[in-house]
Amino acid sequence: MKSLEKYYKAKERFGTSLCIGIDPDYEKIPSIFPKNAKGIGEFSRVIIDITKDIATAYKINFAFFEYFGSAGLNAIEEILIHVPSETFTIADAKRGDIGNSSKFYAKSIFEHFNFDSITVNPLMGRDSIAPFFEFTDKLVFLLGITSNSGANDFLKTRSDNKLLFENIFTKTKEWFSDENLGFVTGATQIEEFSKARILAPNNLFLIPGVGAQGGDLELLKKQKLDPCLINVSRDILFASNKIDFAEKARVKALDYSKLF
Amino acid sequence: MKSLEKYYKAKERFGTSLCIGIDPDYEKIPSIFPKNAKGIGEFSRVIIDITKDIATAYKINFAFFEYFGSAGLNAIEEILIHVPSETFTIADAKRGDIGNSSKFYAKSIFEHFNFDSITVNPLMGRDSIAPFFEFTDKLVFLLGITSNSGANDFLKTRSDNKLLFENIFTKTKEWFSDENLGFVTGATQIEEFSKARILAPNNLFLIPGVGAQGGDLELLKKQKLDPCLINVSRDILFASNKIDFAEKARVKALDYSKLF
Repeated sequence: MKSLEKYYKAKERFGTSLCIGIDPDYEKIPSIFPKNAKGIGEFSRVIIDITKDIATAYKINFAFFEYFGSAGLNAIEEILIHVPSETFTIADAKRGDIGNSSKFYAKSIFEHFNFDSITVNPLMGRDSIAPFFEFTDKLVFLLGITSNSGANDFLKTRSDNKLLFENIFTKTKEWFSDENLGFVTGATQIEEFSKARILAPNNLFLIPGVGAQGGDLELLKKQKLDPCLINVSRDILFASNKIDFAEKARVKALDYSKLF
Repeated sequence: MKSLEKYYKAKERFGTSLCIGIDPDYEKIPSIFPKNAKGIGEFSRVIIDITKDIATAYKINFAFFEYFGSAGLNAIEEILIHVPSETFTIADAKRGDIGNSSKFYAKSIFEHFNFDSITVNPLMGRDSIAPFFEFTDKLVFLLGITSNSGANDFLKTRSDNKLLFENIFTKTKEWFSDENLGFVTGATQIEEFSKARILAPNNLFLIPGVGAQGGDLELLKKQKLDPCLINVSRDILFASNKIDFAEKARVKALDYSKLF
């Protein structure tokens, strides 16, 4: 099944746009878990098991795993076994390199790990991102307008009489099929979100920035959100750092799942 | 010892700007090696052992290792043991994310793997790259002007009345110390290279694109290159795919080491 079709089916099944971000910061996980790769892996597995009837998608943030090197990537390999086959998966890896290297990054995420989608940095241009799109069953989320303050530094500078992020949307829409092309579009950037949706009315948006990052959900909900996945990480994962962390995470996930 | 100081000492000791790029494409390594993580790891180890009295630096391209998931990262961990302690090391990983994730990518490369430097994608702006610079002993190569054709798509578009890559040089020079700040500046982009050197006269340049990528060495050598590392990967690694691959790689490495 194509990733985009899988997204629509998962969204219908679970009835929400909620994507749970698996960001297992070893400094923040409950103290019952050891502060190593096994610890963050086991914590992530519990979070997935307790929310797997709720979330439409899981987004795995590679940074927190790579901190532990090979043992961290091994934890990702083991976690993925616990994700239900109907749930959409995102490798949040922000890869992007010259063509031959991008080809291997794409093969890593789509063949080795078998994710449904990946986040990719488009700065190096068309030939650096094209290898990801050669996997025509998969979905690629390009960084569009990110949720951090640094988005002002380059993404919101003028580029060819547009803003750079608008230029990214316009050019990549010409290069690739909507079926494979999604965008990361931060919840903290309402004005830019609105422009992005006009430029890409039908592309799947991955929306980070709700919750701990401070995105305003009421403002966001006035936008044309769908098709989208709205990511929440810390608010769910670290709802409690005590023995009741799983129960509290489930309550938070349920709450968010009803909001969008 | 600070990474920049280590670079100057290694360059003096080995007498060259040659950086050997460890890009072990499993499809291209000699058939005596198995086409798995152990195979590319063993091949990389042989290349390092046979050239370790020649190269001033090794650049490890994570893409070719991540293709094999955790086993691939384990191969990197094992390879690094074979790099002489006086040789400069570059994690060619092109990372970059929002602050908290970048912090963990930085810790991965600098603490877990203990590389001297990393390549980082600056698209997401200041707060996305600052965590790498918090390791004040280390060196960060930001993507400046890359060697691929896609550099035309965004890096060479106008941004705030400059070209985007010029804007990246100017802003990041203001934000970070020259001691920690290097740039990736492709050998295939002579006109832009020249502009980059004017913008950043004293920053360490990592120069890819010589050899298989077609950068013109004669044109390049008319530029102010130093301080720099000039990376050659495929021309050395795959000088032969027969039993004499190591011997041929050494000959090629020696040739290049005398050229710059």
